Amino acid sequence: MTQSEPESLYESVCRHARETALLASIESALGWDERTMMPPAAADYRAEQVTYLAGMIHRRRTDPQWGERLAALAEGPLAADPHSETGANIRRLKRQYEKRVKLPQGLVEELARTASLGQHVWQEARRNNDFASFLPILDKTFRLKREEADALGYPECRYDALLDDFEPDERTSSVARVLAELRDRLVPLVGRIGASPRRPDVSILLRRYPVDVQEAFGRQAAAAIGFDFTAGRLDVTAHPFCAGLGPRDCRITTRFNERAFGEAFFGILHEAGHGLYDQGLRADQYGLPAGDAVSLGIHESQSRMWENLVGRSRAFWQHFYPEAQKRFPEALGGVAIDDFYFAINGVRPSLIRVEADEATYNLHILIRFELEQALMDGQLPVGDLPGAWNEKYRHYLGIVPPNDSQGVLQDIHWAGGLVGYFPTYALGNLYAAQFFARADAELGGLAAQFARGEFEPLRQWLRRNIHEQGQCYSAAELVERVTGGPLSPEPLLAHLEAKLGPLYA
Amino acid sequence: MTQSEPESLYESVCRHARETALLASIESALGWDERTMMPPAAADYRAEQVTYLAGMIHRRRTDPQWGERLAALAEGPLAADPHSETGANIRRLKRQYEKRVKLPQGLVEELARTASLGQHVWQEARRNNDFASFLPILDKTFRLKREEADALGYPECRYDALLDDFEPDERTSSVARVLAELRDRLVPLVGRIGASPRRPDVSILLRRYPVDVQEAFGRQAAAAIGFDFTAGRLDVTAHPFCAGLGPRDCRITTRFNERAFGEAFFGILHEAGHGLYDQGLRADQYGLPAGDAVSLGIHESQSRMWENLVGRSRAFWQHFYPEAQKRFPEALGGVAIDDFYFAINGVRPSLIRVEADEATYNLHILIRFELEQALMDGQLPVGDLPGAWNEKYRHYLGIVPPNDSQGVLQDIHWAGGLVGYFPTYALGNLYAAQFFARADAELGGLAAQFARGEFEPLRQWLRRNIHEQGQCYSAAELVERVTGGPLSPEPLLAHLEAKLGPLYA
Repeated sequence: MTQSEPESLYESVCRHARETALLASIESALGWDERTMMPPAAADYRAEQVTYLAGMIHRRRTDPQWGERLAALAEGPLAADPHSETGANIRRLKRQYEKRVKLPQGLVEELARTASLGQHVWQEARRNNDFASFLPILDKTFRLKREEADALGYPECRYDALLDDFEPDERTSSVARVLAELRDRLVPLVGRIGASPRRPDVSILLRRYPVDVQEAFGRQAAAAIGFDFTAGRLDVTAHPFCAGLGPRDCRITTRFNERAFGEAFFGILHEAGHGLYDQGLRADQYGLPAGDAVSLGIHESQSRMWENLVGRSRAFWQHFYPEAQKRFPEALGGVAIDDFYFAINGVRPSLIRVEADEATYNLHILIRFELEQALMDGQLPVGDLPGAWNEKYRHYLGIVPPNDSQGVLQDIHWAGGLVGYFPTYALGNLYAAQFFARADAELGGLAAQFARGEFEPLRQWLRRNIHEQGQCYSAAELVERVTGGPLSPEPLLAHLEAKLGPLYA
Repeated sequence: MTQSEPESLYESVCRHARETALLASIESALGWDERTMMPPAAADYRAEQVTYLAGMIHRRRTDPQWGERLAALAEGPLAADPHSETGANIRRLKRQYEKRVKLPQGLVEELARTASLGQHVWQEARRNNDFASFLPILDKTFRLKREEADALGYPECRYDALLDDFEPDERTSSVARVLAELRDRLVPLVGRIGASPRRPDVSILLRRYPVDVQEAFGRQAAAAIGFDFTAGRLDVTAHPFCAGLGPRDCRITTRFNERAFGEAFFGILHEAGHGLYDQGLRADQYGLPAGDAVSLGIHESQSRMWENLVGRSRAFWQHFYPEAQKRFPEALGGVAIDDFYFAINGVRPSLIRVEADEATYNLHILIRFELEQALMDGQLPVGDLPGAWNEKYRHYLGIVPPNDSQGVLQDIHWAGGLVGYFPTYALGNLYAAQFFARADAELGGLAAQFARGEFEPLRQWLRRNIHEQGQCYSAAELVERVTGGPLSPEPLLAHLEAKLGPLYA
């Protein structure tokens, strides 16, 4: 083997991966359109389009010739350093390949078709508060996901196989342990808050906030934290998301409610946080692991950091509150900043995950995490899900949804075939607090910067330490490398106690 | 050969065509997004996506195995009747295949890439009134189009090869003859109008028409003539178009000008006319010639009919004018219907094709038709185009554009590689008038129906006689079959004389 051969083999492997990513980016474009723009009658044909592309992508990702080339490269010098750009690309692509060849083509296409149609059925079902109409396709989805897990194999339980799609190298048991540790400290904290005589006046946030002003203000805030609108968009959808349609095409979405200030505003900061990660990835490595996000948990850490650790901080509002008062004089003209700040940080058990406060949010995740494990194990029939959902809400949060639209039908994830995804939200909260504490220490006090409207130092720190690292490190390695220690619930708990202690006395 | 073999061969040929159409519909979705939604920084990667798809589509359309199957079918019983669904599908697919195999793959990809980038360069150039910045890519476009024509071959002149893409079976010489016949009668008519002492008060249309009200009114009118918004959308773009993204996904676009009522309103009727053709095609034949439009000229006949023969008729406004006055009380409250009707039918030489009146419009087309023939022959260097453009405007319309943005840079077509497209607009006007005269006779007086807000009989007539026929007949055959005679400029001239005579006395 001559010196130049490994390079040229590497290049051909990368070209293959980049072309596959190009097809996947087209699938993303169709998915974004489906959820923001597409007329309803187009759903059936869109499902055909997406199914066809998904099949093509799967064939490329499971091409045996490509697999052989990856295996050969993995033995060569370019793979020697697992954290180098080439080493990470080879290692991660090989791992993905080996996982994917286990899935039969027919199952992949059926999953894609079911996910596409499922989302439309779900939209109707949620609108009409009609779980029964959603049941058949949801049942089919979980049946297919069980087939998927069985085809993939798993170390301890079926759920491991699906979790690995979103949080590579994580185990269900390990996530369960961390979340239990968090819960054991959170529940008493929430209990002390519930017993406190102090209560924020949350009615402030339910006044009239004209939608067009909300949109302009949200755009201003997203741009201020660094979201690049020349390489991105903001649109309206039923269930907000962030989608990358290419290396310089990141689309975030939100939904507006004239009578709920926080829903769109913090939603936009959240999605813009995802967007900053996408926009911070290395464009020259687009389509390769070194230009891709580490895991959904790490992705979520970016969105939750901008939404909560930045967007709900007092310093952030020292800068933005005068602007908010100017834009919403009727609602906020006579409201003191401290009252507003308390209102946006109020802690109270609630029904809707995406509207939950920082403290109780993780309990919403625990519920879903436990339910989807039971569904995957087959212990819980899908038909019993609404009852089980309501029972868990009673148990963890002490409240019961009055209907399924505000209960089991609230999230799109299962409808879209995303099982094993929810725990990444809680992991994201933990990563976010741990990264933020480190950035705060290294950058010498972020609060003072935020109060002056300076968000660039934090964004650059995240770009350098996280975004530009791509998948050169696993989530666990990255946390260790950036913060000097393993993942721990301590930083999040310290943050919550530091913030909520003074507010609730 | 047993009895059942031809059917199964036919089915496999259709499956191949339908899958190719599916990829083409995805390319359409990306094209629509590019022109309505995409952030500017995404242009380069979008060009890569489109180029990749175009290459894939071209490979499928020129697959030799498929060509052999088509050739075999063309000899069989299913192709015996050329106007049957199967006969038309086989005949037209074979014709398209034989044309396409003449184009080298590299040229096809280069054309797609150049067209995608060209549109972005053009947008900037038009905005900055900077033809020089557009010149290099436009020059490249025409060089590639000459290569394309030479590769395709042609009966009489290079332009024939390109015209055939849009108006199959037409010849440049024959189009030139019909347009000359039209011009020889039109010029004196426009001259008599210019000499008339009567003038409409067109300032009525330049009052303030709030954009959001224009949009609502435009949507109402589009829905009233039958555009199905559950299977379509209306969006804003720089250069309005209508795109089919699937059998039940038709997207029309417009641009709004607060100070020009007609621009968006008649633009929407125009694009909705295209949309009605798309929505009237046979969904069960989607992706096959029997479910596709005959030609661009016939497509344009549908848009021009709804825009002009319906939308600018007095009867249409008998129904809609009270609504218009209600929606625009400031602009139209004190304006009599006759003055409004005269204003929207004013004839005056102008600079912008898409804003031109029914009578002078065809002169705008003649100019482009002549210029692109000269560019294709190589008689006119692309660098001399702005001068030649302005000279033609002086010659045909007696006016000269003050700058290139209002002159040679006004249309997107050449930037997008569409050469040979313009004459279909004039053919569309001729087909429209001829079809409309026939529908009027058969349906017993359309004016009275329009005045009552009844547009369904005309739409159903068009659907039956034109839309559902797909490509079972050529444009010339369809005109003959529907109207009982060959294409003639008489119906259009009769219509213009009947309308403009009384207005201009």
